[in-house]
Amino acid sequence: MSYLDGSAPDKIAVLGAGSWGTTFAKILGDAAAGTDRKVVLWGRRQEVVDQINDLHRNPRYLSTTELPQNITASVDVKEVLKDAELVVLAVPAQTLREQLRSLAGHLAQDAVVVSLMKGLELGTDQRMSQVIEAELGLSSDRVVVISGPNLAMEIARQEPTASVVACTDENTAKWVATLCKPKYFRPYTVDDVVGVEIGGIVKNVIALCVGICEGQKVGDNTKASVITRGLAETTRLALALGGKAETMAGLAGLGDLVATCSSALSRNHTAGRMLGEGLTLDEVNNRMTQTAEGIKSGRAVSDLAAKIGVDMPITNAVVGVLEGKLTVDELGPLLLARQLKSEGE
Amino acid sequence: MSYLDGSAPDKIAVLGAGSWGTTFAKILGDAAAGTDRKVVLWGRRQEVVDQINDLHRNPRYLSTTELPQNITASVDVKEVLKDAELVVLAVPAQTLREQLRSLAGHLAQDAVVVSLMKGLELGTDQRMSQVIEAELGLSSDRVVVISGPNLAMEIARQEPTASVVACTDENTAKWVATLCKPKYFRPYTVDDVVGVEIGGIVKNVIALCVGICEGQKVGDNTKASVITRGLAETTRLALALGGKAETMAGLAGLGDLVATCSSALSRNHTAGRMLGEGLTLDEVNNRMTQTAEGIKSGRAVSDLAAKIGVDMPITNAVVGVLEGKLTVDELGPLLLARQLKSEGE
Repeated sequence: MSYLDGSAPDKIAVLGAGSWGTTFAKILGDAAAGTDRKVVLWGRRQEVVDQINDLHRNPRYLSTTELPQNITASVDVKEVLKDAELVVLAVPAQTLREQLRSLAGHLAQDAVVVSLMKGLELGTDQRMSQVIEAELGLSSDRVVVISGPNLAMEIARQEPTASVVACTDENTAKWVATLCKPKYFRPYTVDDVVGVEIGGIVKNVIALCVGICEGQKVGDNTKASVITRGLAETTRLALALGGKAETMAGLAGLGDLVATCSSALSRNHTAGRMLGEGLTLDEVNNRMTQTAEGIKSGRAVSDLAAKIGVDMPITNAVVGVLEGKLTVDELGPLLLARQLKSEGE
Repeated sequence: MSYLDGSAPDKIAVLGAGSWGTTFAKILGDAAAGTDRKVVLWGRRQEVVDQINDLHRNPRYLSTTELPQNITASVDVKEVLKDAELVVLAVPAQTLREQLRSLAGHLAQDAVVVSLMKGLELGTDQRMSQVIEAELGLSSDRVVVISGPNLAMEIARQEPTASVVACTDENTAKWVATLCKPKYFRPYTVDDVVGVEIGGIVKNVIALCVGICEGQKVGDNTKASVITRGLAETTRLALALGGKAETMAGLAGLGDLVATCSSALSRNHTAGRMLGEGLTLDEVNNRMTQTAEGIKSGRAVSDLAAKIGVDMPITNAVVGVLEGKLTVDELGPLLLARQLKSEGE
């Protein structure tokens, strides 16, 4: 009943014990301090689950962070979901649909589902909230997206961070926001789910491009131009899909893009840098312990934009590099190679 | 006659031989390669002028850059201005008015004046283009502003850079743009002079804030939020003064802000970092060889915003630190300290 009457839930489930899932469990656990609310984390690996339960740590992803005592973990998704009125999903974007099919029958009645994922499904070009609604048969007032300038490692260290909680029903968004506001994490609510998701998806592709520039030792003038034009093409896509310009100028658009493009902690930025330094895509993938989602979503973004007639030159150039149709040396000149003209054109 | 009939001028004057003035002279000189067009640079110091004429270098500001042969320099402003159909101003913002008074009588008839300055005049709260129009008695179709993600050192190294050329008369803007497009510098034209100037002015204040955060070892999540909310307050001010939102989302707004806040080459960013590390304002000023304009313009921006009723919390906080009313330790918590609410509010 909780999201309907606004009362706090007794149990929150977080599915996915990678760095962001574990960090978000910490946010929820810290926010629940002094209450009876429990946070239960589902992980695939027994070893990770045991470490969380026994040591209150997740050494593989968050080596130095101590997790709050009210977090427990399990490999049994049915047990984790039981009676959980809030379910947070932090699994790899491209396997979400398949995972949802295995848990569909176990979701508590009236549970609200939160997506922490930033990806577009290859093949269907669907956003994560669309996959969730379709596979779990949920109405949009029960599906929430959280996104922003949220490098997990920094939040795990409790550095002050702001984020955006989006739902078509602002009451649901507010209910979720009240459950994830420890002192170091500040959630703002919006109703623009499309804008928030598109911001989170495309920034990974733009971050790959900025990373490539960095790997090629290009300066801050060029990188700032790529970020600016990258946000412009992201905004064009979001608007075409029904999103709002102000969302793109906010924390889940500009904020997330700038954080990802500035930080050595960003996987997409790091992957781009290695490409720019001359590594092949296979070599880059081999060196990464976690997915650089932009590498996967890039093609889906490019396909979606083509389908609805939105011009996304930076995304297309990055996809060209990823698919071996363009070298990183050819990418640079392309980025600024436009005829002398008005900025808006 | 040149800006009126679109023909290229024979002589361009650049006033100010600091790093940006000298670099812009190089842009103009490189763009004039293969023509008879001359670029004449005015400098205050005989030593700097001699080095430019004799060595084709400006060791004080651009140690390693070789200047094109078509650039000469002089300390005689009257000689520099004689017959110059385009006059580019790159002098300290707070002394502009006084300098204009000494050269007003020497400007060639129909000369177009370009401002490279990013400052708001203390006391009058006027933008540089307003000071130029008033002191030289020029109509707005003869006053151009150039601004963007333009770290001078990077341009001097010929790294690919884009910029914005703004004039209320787009024909004038286009005429100037054709004179400053060597291969490494790409000018885009707009008619929103107010937006371009406000973007360039306020970004120095926001960069001080990001620098302070960095000096205090705050993470990229917080810095990205400051950049996002900083651009939001800059946009509010620009809109209130008649500027356009798309300018603020473009190269002269977002682009310049991101470049300045990312780069160790930015004076304002560097000054902020020293403040964040605990230096006093006097200590910071003593360590800088060139002005950090945000330190001077901050108060003028804050005054202007207050006068027209625009809320600029980051600017006001930075001014508080500069004026000793707020410590850098008090600044951090203030930046994210807002009640749980909708992002747009």
